[in-house]
Amino acid sequence: MTILSAYSPPDFTLPDLAAAPIVRVEPAPADGVAPAAFHATSNHPEYIHIGGGRWLLARESRMDAVMVLKGESLEIIEPRRLKRGDPVVVGRGDNGEEGIYLHNSGFRQQVRSEEKFSFRMHGSRETPFSISYDRLYEILRHERDHGYIVWVLGPAVAFDKDSRSAMQCLIEQGYCHALMAGNALATHDLEAARFRTGLGQDIYTQLMQPGGHYNHLDVINETLGYGSIRQMVQELDLKEGIIPACERMGVPYVLAGSIRDDGPLPGVISDARQAQDAMRIYARRTTTAIGLATQLHSIAFGNMLPGYQVLDDGTVRPVYFYVVDMSEFSVDKLANRGSVQAVPILTNVQDFMVNLRHNLC
Amino acid sequence: MTILSAYSPPDFTLPDLAAAPIVRVEPAPADGVAPAAFHATSNHPEYIHIGGGRWLLARESRMDAVMVLKGESLEIIEPRRLKRGDPVVVGRGDNGEEGIYLHNSGFRQQVRSEEKFSFRMHGSRETPFSISYDRLYEILRHERDHGYIVWVLGPAVAFDKDSRSAMQCLIEQGYCHALMAGNALATHDLEAARFRTGLGQDIYTQLMQPGGHYNHLDVINETLGYGSIRQMVQELDLKEGIIPACERMGVPYVLAGSIRDDGPLPGVISDARQAQDAMRIYARRTTTAIGLATQLHSIAFGNMLPGYQVLDDGTVRPVYFYVVDMSEFSVDKLANRGSVQAVPILTNVQDFMVNLRHNLC
Amino acid sequence: MTILSAYSPPDFTLPDLAAAPIVRVEPAPADGVAPAAFHATSNHPEYIHIGGGRWLLARESRMDAVMVLKGESLEIIEPRRLKRGDPVVVGRGDNGEEGIYLHNSGFRQQVRSEEKFSFRMHGSRETPFSISYDRLYEILRHERDHGYIVWVLGPAVAFDKDSRSAMQCLIEQGYCHALMAGNALATHDLEAARFRTGLGQDIYTQLMQPGGHYNHLDVINETLGYGSIRQMVQELDLKEGIIPACERMGVPYVLAGSIRDDGPLPGVISDARQAQDAMRIYARRTTTAIGLATQLHSIAFGNMLPGYQVLDDGTVRPVYFYVVDMSEFSVDKLANRGSVQAVPILTNVQDFMVNLRHNLC
Amino acid sequence: MTILSAYSPPDFTLPDLAAAPIVRVEPAPADGVAPAAFHATSNHPEYIHIGGGRWLLARESRMDAVMVLKGESLEIIEPRRLKRGDPVVVGRGDNGEEGIYLHNSGFRQQVRSEEKFSFRMHGSRETPFSISYDRLYEILRHERDHGYIVWVLGPAVAFDKDSRSAMQCLIEQGYCHALMAGNALATHDLEAARFRTGLGQDIYTQLMQPGGHYNHLDVINETLGYGSIRQMVQELDLKEGIIPACERMGVPYVLAGSIRDDGPLPGVISDARQAQDAMRIYARRTTTAIGLATQLHSIAFGNMLPGYQVLDDGTVRPVYFYVVDMSEFSVDKLANRGSVQAVPILTNVQDFMVNLRHNLC
Repeated sequence: MTILSAYSPPDFTLPDLAAAPIVRVEPAPADGVAPAAFHATSNHPEYIHIGGGRWLLARESRMDAVMVLKGESLEIIEPRRLKRGDPVVVGRGDNGEEGIYLHNSGFRQQVRSEEKFSFRMHGSRETPFSISYDRLYEILRHERDHGYIVWVLGPAVAFDKDSRSAMQCLIEQGYCHALMAGNALATHDLEAARFRTGLGQDIYTQLMQPGGHYNHLDVINETLGYGSIRQMVQELDLKEGIIPACERMGVPYVLAGSIRDDGPLPGVISDARQAQDAMRIYARRTTTAIGLATQLHSIAFGNMLPGYQVLDDGTVRPVYFYVVDMSEFSVDKLANRGSVQAVPILTNVQDFMVNLRHNLC
Repeated sequence: MTILSAYSPPDFTLPDLAAAPIVRVEPAPADGVAPAAFHATSNHPEYIHIGGGRWLLARESRMDAVMVLKGESLEIIEPRRLKRGDPVVVGRGDNGEEGIYLHNSGFRQQVRSEEKFSFRMHGSRETPFSISYDRLYEILRHERDHGYIVWVLGPAVAFDKDSRSAMQCLIEQGYCHALMAGNALATHDLEAARFRTGLGQDIYTQLMQPGGHYNHLDVINETLGYGSIRQMVQELDLKEGIIPACERMGVPYVLAGSIRDDGPLPGVISDARQAQDAMRIYARRTTTAIGLATQLHSIAFGNMLPGYQVLDDGTVRPVYFYVVDMSEFSVDKLANRGSVQAVPILTNVQDFMVNLRHNLC
Repeated sequence: MTILSAYSPPDFTLPDLAAAPIVRVEPAPADGVAPAAFHATSNHPEYIHIGGGRWLLARESRMDAVMVLKGESLEIIEPRRLKRGDPVVVGRGDNGEEGIYLHNSGFRQQVRSEEKFSFRMHGSRETPFSISYDRLYEILRHERDHGYIVWVLGPAVAFDKDSRSAMQCLIEQGYCHALMAGNALATHDLEAARFRTGLGQDIYTQLMQPGGHYNHLDVINETLGYGSIRQMVQELDLKEGIIPACERMGVPYVLAGSIRDDGPLPGVISDARQAQDAMRIYARRTTTAIGLATQLHSIAFGNMLPGYQVLDDGTVRPVYFYVVDMSEFSVDKLANRGSVQAVPILTNVQDFMVNLRHNLC
Repeated sequence: MTILSAYSPPDFTLPDLAAAPIVRVEPAPADGVAPAAFHATSNHPEYIHIGGGRWLLARESRMDAVMVLKGESLEIIEPRRLKRGDPVVVGRGDNGEEGIYLHNSGFRQQVRSEEKFSFRMHGSRETPFSISYDRLYEILRHERDHGYIVWVLGPAVAFDKDSRSAMQCLIEQGYCHALMAGNALATHDLEAARFRTGLGQDIYTQLMQPGGHYNHLDVINETLGYGSIRQMVQELDLKEGIIPACERMGVPYVLAGSIRDDGPLPGVISDARQAQDAMRIYARRTTTAIGLATQLHSIAFGNMLPGYQVLDDGTVRPVYFYVVDMSEFSVDKLANRGSVQAVPILTNVQDFMVNLRHNLC
């Protein structure tokens, strides 16, 4: 399995770490409130010293969460989910001086890719992306059978015929284990399935359909009439498109609501916290994520995505996160918000999808 | 009051309109579901014929809503708020042929400005904006005393010292009657009030504060400890910044949640529908709105913003909507989503704010 | 040959045109200076009335040029090429009132595409581009044997391995009859041929080559040592890349200089007027042009590109102009500068090239 | 004079430098060709060892030039200006090992600002710019009397009334010692002076002037008729605008031609090498440069701009270079091309100019 970078754990026999104190906890002062000196997690592997030279590695970690340590059970949760009295790990040093060690050089290859990243931070549309594509194809072929691939889709993927059917094909071929999106992606996709338009514009001919601006609202109203997306897909026997493919293939999807939503469609989770909780379920098991043309959803999912996974046999493997967008600003913003492992590809998602279908389907 | 464009109502004695049938309604088939042929509103003045040549003008309208007609009472509501059996106006023609008339040429000056708009659709960063600024100053001076000014703020406004204090000044001087924003704006603003940083970076010197990445999480945790933003502002006697100014001046603000939120702060409305409802309260009375560096909130608010208001004396006046952003894509997207009256200014919101303070404070 | 839109000439028997006066000329007052009322050409078909109901159609036209009429010989030239005394067509009306008729509705399909264009003006990265690609493939297959295809390349095409070899393949397969570019494209391409880098970065692995920032200057210096690009390509037997492919296939290329140039390479035309003259030679015969990731060269070439060509048998056919860029601003700027027939595709040129190779090579 | 960062020269008594060999030269093998191992300059201070522990500091340096050493006279010239036999410094190490030392830590404050720069490389429109403005005001006030300020203007500065008159005011107040621009800036500025339009659009009202698209060509033709810009400005007594202000104040300007030019105006230097030579004259003496909304001219001038100046008394002082643009891509490209000292401000140049007038005029 040489496709994935190997992981070198820290050497806890080194003097600094050998001398590390036992990590401290303090009780959460109230529901949803952390003790003042709480330790916030990153998406790198982090270890805490529980005594006698024994260190626990956080599992299913994420950025900006807190560590709750009960006995030898260490859980990584969002601060808002704390209950009063929960024992929260405290300390802001991460070199062992407070019993916490952040290990950001575990993936040899990731060290190299961090080097690349510091380059990519200054990267741009003019960066050569051939290798990024080739590597992604290789990773996806591996992950289809041995990993967990999550797609985070912006609405633009559904606006173009070829792009939309490429996504459908990838779902059908097993390259998508879960899908994160918003009301707009699902609505546009179902509008295309019903009327072959996106916001009234034919997704192939580019022509505005007369009266087509109603299509968007009609498809929402119609779906509400059926009671659920699944019901409508089945009763109308919709075959084409992203959401119908998910339904047919049993691929779970989370539709997170936003204040920009029309409708929304039945099944869209209006409450942001509930939506985050639903997304986090999939983030916990993700091994490769791909965020396409959505700053909101990509940053949201990126924040809850660990940089590594601990497999059943204890092996630590990297988590890959590809971000595809047209603007350096969007991609850099994601990196600036801490999703350090993000690999950017600057292009139109339409072409990105067509490339993937051509190489994977 | 020549500052505002005068409104010319339609001439209902013209043959086509004189011959118009009475508008039809159909009952909503279920809660939140509209009859199939429902009429969707625009943000232009729309009239319905209730018989005998009497036409009702929709009030507090918005895009993509439905008309509920009970007797002579006409209400514009989001489809999701329909109750089963509600009498919903149906018909998709809007030239009177179904008793519905959309009047998109009522504001003579707005006709000219629509002409300008069709130009501005192709406008860009190279469009001359001097007149847009001058006109905006004139409008804001008028609206401070005779209108209702709503600001829709992206987080970038709080990242820079001068920009943030300019916004504070405009609030203090009465130029802001309500504020729409997200968790990030409020968090960054309070972080600046507490630590003089935004995401750990000094908002004046640009230097990263050592360990400053905790500031963001600390300010959220701290506020949660106080129980509410107001409580913290008062107890810590925070004076500087946008949110403290709102608190001090009694300016209402809506903080709408999103899946990207850390925390969130107490008071952030996590449920998108509830947040939309809260925002709509202010949209109903807005006479001028200004959206800054936020695609999500600007499109959301733009969608629920009428293009006109009916004053107490029956006068119809225009509603202004300025949108400030760095990218043509963002601004065009807003226009493409139907907010036709949007006046774009392409620039960095930092400079925009400084300009406004210089001319208004 | 239904691939190309058919052309409907104007009906000169219509009253307005039948009554048109004979066109007037005035002598150029000095070398390079036009008479005050000179008529400036567009890139649409334009006719002038020379008497007796006989109208001449301008050939090999372009934007912003003047018409020199000697007897029945009508030539379209840049004002700077006027000689004192040249008889220049005058008149600014273009509906026949001064003997000049601009025919902007000759291509039925182009009318539709103008409609589409007015849509595309508001178009964006979210416009569905599948049909634009399919249409382009169809056109290029036709033009390879029956037209004249000119590529206008920005340097980014040479920065990526797959993109660069795709361009090479299209040249080898006959899809490029002439190439317009600048010093940078040629330098980067030759740097890749010599060192496999672009500005020192490996065009596949993305790694910076140690000391690689010298590669750029070295390849220029080396070529200067050989005396010409051709000489170096031959002596070093360079096979890979865009410029070597042009040399091998006998495809002419114009390298236009700019103040940003290092070197420049031998063969780069430093004088802007001479470079324009050299480019115009190819613009006069272009039937399809493709501009990639270069605002400077695309606008320059677009300005000198006619919207139509008159074939030997008198048939009038459209000229196609595709523009590929990442930013709406660049593409709109081209349209705003008058290249109305430009079909934008918003994406990274790397993916664009890979798409073309996949479908055409 | 604490406004400018102090310079700490290298310590040539340090072992590595004390042991440095004497620098080597090789003769240029042909006109315009450098010896294979030529040393290319950066824009940092570079010293060469001429023996006996004596080191010469390059003066009026620039990026990507070569060093010609005749006796103790060291000249920095573009490779294309080499004459066969010129003694060119060779060697690619820059730590003394070949008698060449690049000193990139001389400006203490610039070290800090380099730190900031590495931050700014990842900077964006959301970076707080208040301090950048304040610092720029301070620098310009100093440089007006004690430095040499060069402006590099893109055409957008002339498209807006307030922006254009702000630039005029800065010229009149002595804040501009030389101006670099292209044909477009001058043409748009003169069009505004003659017709109050830019490409036919009123620079204040935004309205398209009927037939206004001729204004652009007319102003070029008219100027050509007068024989020179100066002649036209004088005879028509043009008072408003950027170019008239330069003429009135005796501020030299270089108009560099490009293949995109219409006309061009008389005085535009069509040959890129001659234009570079003309620009370099001013680059050699620049102490602060400001590049506005022009990638082409900013990169060109940035490449020829030294990072420091040696004053008459031998003092070494920094050269400042501010770059104002709307897009991260443009600004990063400048940095990636090596103009390391560039301070970016991401905004619309219209607002930038208005800010400067407000604070300096």
